Amino acid sequence: MEKKITVLPGDGIGPEVVAAAIRVLQAIGKRYNHDFQLGYAAIGGAAIDQFNNPLPEETIEMCKQSDAILLGAVGGPKWDNNSPELRPEKGLLRIRKTFDLFANLRPVKAFPSLLNASPLKREVAENVDLMIVRELTGGIYFGEKQRTETDASDLNIYTRSEIERIVDNAFEMARLRRGKLCSVDKANVLETSRLWRAVVDEKKELNPDIEVEHNLVDSVAMKLITNPGHYDVVVTDNMFGDILSDEASVITGSLGVLPSASIRGDNFGLYEPVHGSAPEIAGLGIANPAATILSVAMMLQYSFGMKEEAAEIERAVNAVFEDGHFTADLAKNNETALSTDEWTDKVIAEI
Amino acid sequence: MEKKITVLPGDGIGPEVVAAAIRVLQAIGKRYNHDFQLGYAAIGGAAIDQFNNPLPEETIEMCKQSDAILLGAVGGPKWDNNSPELRPEKGLLRIRKTFDLFANLRPVKAFPSLLNASPLKREVAENVDLMIVRELTGGIYFGEKQRTETDASDLNIYTRSEIERIVDNAFEMARLRRGKLCSVDKANVLETSRLWRAVVDEKKELNPDIEVEHNLVDSVAMKLITNPGHYDVVVTDNMFGDILSDEASVITGSLGVLPSASIRGDNFGLYEPVHGSAPEIAGLGIANPAATILSVAMMLQYSFGMKEEAAEIERAVNAVFEDGHFTADLAKNNETALSTDEWTDKVIAEI
Ligand SMILES: CC(C)[C@H](C(=O)O)[C@@H](O)C(=O)O
Ligand SMILES: CC(C)[C@H](C(=O)O)[C@@H](O)C(=O)O
Repeated sequence: MEKKITVLPGDGIGPEVVAAAIRVLQAIGKRYNHDFQLGYAAIGGAAIDQFNNPLPEETIEMCKQSDAILLGAVGGPKWDNNSPELRPEKGLLRIRKTFDLFANLRPVKAFPSLLNASPLKREVAENVDLMIVRELTGGIYFGEKQRTETDASDLNIYTRSEIERIVDNAFEMARLRRGKLCSVDKANVLETSRLWRAVVDEKKELNPDIEVEHNLVDSVAMKLITNPGHYDVVVTDNMFGDILSDEASVITGSLGVLPSASIRGDNFGLYEPVHGSAPEIAGLGIANPAATILSVAMMLQYSFGMKEEAAEIERAVNAVFEDGHFTADLAKNNETALSTDEWTDKVIAEI
Repeated sequence: MEKKITVLPGDGIGPEVVAAAIRVLQAIGKRYNHDFQLGYAAIGGAAIDQFNNPLPEETIEMCKQSDAILLGAVGGPKWDNNSPELRPEKGLLRIRKTFDLFANLRPVKAFPSLLNASPLKREVAENVDLMIVRELTGGIYFGEKQRTETDASDLNIYTRSEIERIVDNAFEMARLRRGKLCSVDKANVLETSRLWRAVVDEKKELNPDIEVEHNLVDSVAMKLITNPGHYDVVVTDNMFGDILSDEASVITGSLGVLPSASIRGDNFGLYEPVHGSAPEIAGLGIANPAATILSVAMMLQYSFGMKEEAAEIERAVNAVFEDGHFTADLAKNNETALSTDEWTDKVIAEI
């Protein structure tokens, strides 16, 4: 197959981890005979420096011509005091909205070889295998904002159809996994949550094979720590999803290896590691590329329908961990830590 | 001293744990020669059953005549399908608003003897000693709500003065503790957060002895698990505070022993355990009264200025734990578990 990918390296360690992931992608292309065509463009701080715009028109145009987007990371202290419109994360928010990438998929799975790095007791974290489905283009992120002399406000607003499409997506996801769905809201306080809950209940009637539970966001914030193994698919709104998916990302000790996908109804999507731009280690060649490599696997699976290829990357990454090879963030002592490139070579050797 | 307390036992295990805490309060009264006068009133489900109103006028009147309120817990499956206006938690939201209890104080401290029950590794949880200061009467909880055929919305709104008073409160709290304050917001997305951050920065100038940091809510949701010992005082808005304080409540394994206070500018306040009404064990006489007993200690300290008496209760509770006495929720095996009353007797014997 022939696929066009727009690559947005971004800031901090973004360029390094993206370069590593692209090497793995090319290895897969060679092995399975696919032609991955890459175009590079700017986003975030790098784009502000070059174009005074965190998401330049050129970048949008190139993305429009592609089948998928691979993003490194955006942000860094250099741009922290910029005005809201000229901040790196504005590029991220805008690309999600421009391409209507309403479903953010964040899998969290325990790697047995990484559990030592988890803040949780082994027995609590070891069976974790969950997927957070976060609504990404609505809610309080994009509702009307106001600021006066005396107050400030943000409108949290959801249309029924915005909720329907993300909930449909979550039901499908649950069906592909273990058939369990937890919908998270704050229905005892929020009107948007009451509409959300009503939509989930309607969809539940149409999906009798899926086991559905409703739970309040405060209660889920607890249970994600006390019993994370309970969850299969968790669906929630943009704001709650931001908080819960970051909370969930640290329970298995593998924040540095977590991928994400931001997709819409068709096959188009944006793929990026969950970790940030880590400016403090940028340019040192020691960043962990696993999350970006696994994001490429999600791209192969969700945008290109290449299930076998995706599974092959996941298998390779897991094998390298099982063999005891780690980058500095996960290595037990620094002497044995591999560089970004060395670790990537191990993965490629497995493929 | 003579103090009037309105007691609101509420639902589920509420009446049992409140009864136990009142016994401890009376023991303190005897020992230190205080006269605590109690009046009982209805709230939550119990009030709905009796008065068809989760916060009857009689209850409000009695609270107005008192120096402080002690609350058990509200809620239960019996009222889960009631209309929003006739739900137990509406009583809670309304009493906060009626009495302008804008500051919710939620201390989380590791008890060495309870760390086995923590989902976190001992070394991560053992030094936890933090206080979450949550704004409790503003934000998205009380902003305008709308529901139409096609959408639903909730307005998140804060006035500058609402933010100022809670932030002032948090600075004072930090001064009484270790002098560190973490303000939590989502300033990269929300206008309310940008106003919040501006207010904190202004107050910081006036409080140069306090070390201040700003952090994003998603990032704090992670760090509360990976490094909870980092925090001293954490101040945040109503919605983020709801999520983060519940998340924080499970990290030390001591959810069943956590107290809370909801206060305002003067000495008046409402005190309640963090745990809920636990309907599944209501009436069995096995509930853990520690959280309510420690809530009484907070009442003595914050509403009555009785520092020594408060410290005496805390010391007694800690001593009983150190001696290896636990109720069923914390006992390693059921044979050694004490009943609510037996455990309370141990605390009283210590005083
Ligand atoms: C950078 C920020 C605007 C963004 C968000 O809140 O969505 C980030 O936290 C994320 O989760 O991708
Ligand atoms: C019952 C509910 C409305 C309440 C809240 O969200 O404030 C509770 O979760 C709490 O934290 O006291």
